Amino acid sequence: MSVRGGIECGGSKWECAIGGSGPDLTAAETIPTTTPEETIERAIAFFEREGPVDAIGIGSFGPLDRRPGSPTWGYVTTTPKPGWAQTDIAGPIGRALSVPVAFDTDVNAAALGEHRWGAAQGLDTFCYITVGTGIGGGGMVGGKLLHGLLHPEFGHLRVPHDLTLDPFPGSCPYHGDCWEGLASGTALRARWGMPATQLDGEVAWQLQARYLALGLVAVIAVLSPERIVIGGGVMQRPGLLADVQRELAALVNGYLGAAASIAPPALGGRAGVLGAIALAESL
Amino acid sequence: MSVRGGIECGGSKWECAIGGSGPDLTAAETIPTTTPEETIERAIAFFEREGPVDAIGIGSFGPLDRRPGSPTWGYVTTTPKPGWAQTDIAGPIGRALSVPVAFDTDVNAAALGEHRWGAAQGLDTFCYITVGTGIGGGGMVGGKLLHGLLHPEFGHLRVPHDLTLDPFPGSCPYHGDCWEGLASGTALRARWGMPATQLDGEVAWQLQARYLALGLVAVIAVLSPERIVIGGGVMQRPGLLADVQRELAALVNGYLGAAASIAPPALGGRAGVLGAIALAESL
Repeated sequence: MSVRGGIECGGSKWECAIGGSGPDLTAAETIPTTTPEETIERAIAFFEREGPVDAIGIGSFGPLDRRPGSPTWGYVTTTPKPGWAQTDIAGPIGRALSVPVAFDTDVNAAALGEHRWGAAQGLDTFCYITVGTGIGGGGMVGGKLLHGLLHPEFGHLRVPHDLTLDPFPGSCPYHGDCWEGLASGTALRARWGMPATQLDGEVAWQLQARYLALGLVAVIAVLSPERIVIGGGVMQRPGLLADVQRELAALVNGYLGAAASIAPPALGGRAGVLGAIALAESL
Repeated sequence: MSVRGGIECGGSKWECAIGGSGPDLTAAETIPTTTPEETIERAIAFFEREGPVDAIGIGSFGPLDRRPGSPTWGYVTTTPKPGWAQTDIAGPIGRALSVPVAFDTDVNAAALGEHRWGAAQGLDTFCYITVGTGIGGGGMVGGKLLHGLLHPEFGHLRVPHDLTLDPFPGSCPYHGDCWEGLASGTALRARWGMPATQLDGEVAWQLQARYLALGLVAVIAVLSPERIVIGGGVMQRPGLLADVQRELAALVNGYLGAAASIAPPALGGRAGVLGAIALAESL
């Protein structure tokens, strides 16, 4: 049986793991995301120590280049994350370990993980959304990961923003009040002066549920998913998912007939790294 | 060679045509959309007179039911169009002519037509958008028409709406100021008191370009299409497409790297009915 490695590259930490054809891990390590050089070096050291592996799958924060044959394939591209723009991630890892590398977005990897072992098993068209430091989305259409020209960037769609109710200008350095700029963990911290885990107030969380539902309306209108699997740190807030579902029903207002079901990830925080291992199977 | 019929069912007219495996039509007729009974009867009469055909493809306004095996397959469902909600379209036509019927949205049919003979040839992932009486969108992902749970309903996503600049509440009976409620031909007529064809004023058309671009940002963020083919009556306005492209570039602000190209339909007003004929090929 093949031994496969997976890396979920997040903005604050990387999850590295080794597994096979099931959802069990034989080794795992969490690495803090510091500089590209240090972080990549520590990931390589993990696989040198715990491997060998036959192939590695990487699911990374974006935007990134996953177009086959592109000269910057395997790079994180225009990320606003300091020090990480135009960084080759897949190249140095594959070369150091002499293994083939599969490269996709963190959310497409998580979607693949949930499709294989979690809350999206057997579905043809669904999406996976994470609401954490940023907002990202990926998914499958016709049973295949959605790529298109580049890859989806759900977080950067625009949603209605009533400045009289919410004067916060948004936290996205590119767009101000895009979906991510209004409803990510970063936006919550900037608007309310505290992280989501400490935030407790009806007004704040009702507004949050409203923004999340407004973005989901766009996802549903464009993609018509059978299910939306939605996770990430912000979604850990008790009652938030139910509030989002209620806001969404009010916004859709019966128009779209059967509405997509909305569910938390069955694999929890392991969806991304398990999906990265599953990505490596494609090699 | 098979002889195929196609019907593009629009809110104001039905286009009926007969063709084969190319983009040429051997017969065509435009029927005004009146009551369901009268309109369907006249379409049947066209094919009885000009046929016989081996199969018929129907691309219809929606929302509609195209789920195989559904008891209401072939129906237009919750449309706000008076008299047309819960109307069986495919059933009576197939039975009267004793032919198999393929049934999809008007915009998916147009997308298929543009993919076969027009501005989307060879593309893997693209979408087709029409801005007319309403706003609709369809498309392909991985070379196959996008369906998901139901079908896309691009027009009903929400976009930012600054009521101080544009106090118009929106024309959608379900959602008020959704994308269609702000930027369809119906919205233009309601906001400015005249149809788009007579509307002439910088403020009106700049606002229109802005709204169209805001919706396209959502389409690009969710679907990452290689190309957006955008047609419909409102897009006939000279210079509008270029204005939309400029607004879109400003909104995306360089974030998404390579941006989708935007093009008018190469088949013009025939995309829908040609695509409906192409739909019949799937039978």
